[in-house]
Amino acid sequence: MGASTKQGYGIASKSRKIVRALIGDKIKDLSPDEQLIIERIVHSTADPEYAEITRISPDFVSESVKAIETQKDILTDINMVRAGINEYSGEIKCYISHEETLKIAKEEQITRAAAAIRVAHDKGFDGIIAIGNAPTALFEAIDLVENQGMKVSSIIGVPVGFVGAAESKDFLKKTEIPNVITEGPKGGTPVAVAVVNTIIGINKD
Amino acid sequence: MGASTKQGYGIASKSRKIVRALIGDKIKDLSPDEQLIIERIVHSTADPEYAEITRISPDFVSESVKAIETQKDILTDINMVRAGINEYSGEIKCYISHEETLKIAKEEQITRAAAAIRVAHDKGFDGIIAIGNAPTALFEAIDLVENQGMKVSSIIGVPVGFVGAAESKDFLKKTEIPNVITEGPKGGTPVAVAVVNTIIGINKD
Repeated sequence: MGASTKQGYGIASKSRKIVRALIGDKIKDLSPDEQLIIERIVHSTADPEYAEITRISPDFVSESVKAIETQKDILTDINMVRAGINEYSGEIKCYISHEETLKIAKEEQITRAAAAIRVAHDKGFDGIIAIGNAPTALFEAIDLVENQGMKVSSIIGVPVGFVGAAESKDFLKKTEIPNVITEGPKGGTPVAVAVVNTIIGINKD
Repeated sequence: MGASTKQGYGIASKSRKIVRALIGDKIKDLSPDEQLIIERIVHSTADPEYAEITRISPDFVSESVKAIETQKDILTDINMVRAGINEYSGEIKCYISHEETLKIAKEEQITRAAAAIRVAHDKGFDGIIAIGNAPTALFEAIDLVENQGMKVSSIIGVPVGFVGAAESKDFLKKTEIPNVITEGPKGGTPVAVAVVNTIIGINKD
């Protein structure tokens, strides 16, 4: 789980045991890879509630691993999510501070996070989208996939907050897009990062 | 709360009202600035429990704002925390991937996050430390302040996890260092970022 020294490995291994003791029972019917995803979310947040609110679509792992194998791009809504993804040999993109993003956001008075997804699509994005912050970015991504032919292998849709987050995740769950969501207002950068890093790890194993 | 467009402001304002309705009663005895800190943590995590587990030392706001005013450095344990801090005109430092850090971590078999704090001290760091991930980094920072004369204005000590996080925060709380902590295993990048960005915002107002 990101550890690279003896002390680091010791902590990760002890944490894994504690997490399994806390949530093992709740996730025992999931596939081993899906269990890894949820264990890592709980490890990263210290919040066992994620074992109850995380939903993984049946095709999420296979489609995501296929994308990672072929080094497709990963698109994140904010730089914080990008900064947490480690050891990926493909490209990780985030257009939140891109000039074109600021222009679209200003002109259309939409959030920068939503405009940034549109910019990615305009640039021909094809890969995995990880949304850890903005519901508006998730709504935009779904709209672009369903109505504008945006190419995505999967969407990790775990925006956080009391305004629109739950609704945006409900919406994603009802689509045909391979996805992970967290029900309700909870989610966030560490959750998105945990899912992406698990998928990268599964591909390496 | 990080919003820069009409849609963004609308969401932030609606969220603020919901957060106040959820936790207003629990934080009403705190100073207005301390309330802002906790409101922003709850906004960022969608987890009202932070209103109960966040502890702010009485000198934290004044010492931190003084440091921000004079543009002292901010040191983060991981890049994810650094990536979330916005609109600071001073420097934000993180040595987790620094060559010297990797060397110390390997030689002494300590975590990279702990070694990175030592590297900052060796380089004469003086400012605010924000730890959002690694308890080992927090233990190291406290040790350097108490025994090696490391100069800190305040420590935002909110590492997350089931191994050592709670203990490291308990330890910080008992020191004389101006601090914010979250009791128990919870914490993380969004919490650290919320505190730092609130302090920067207070200074601007």
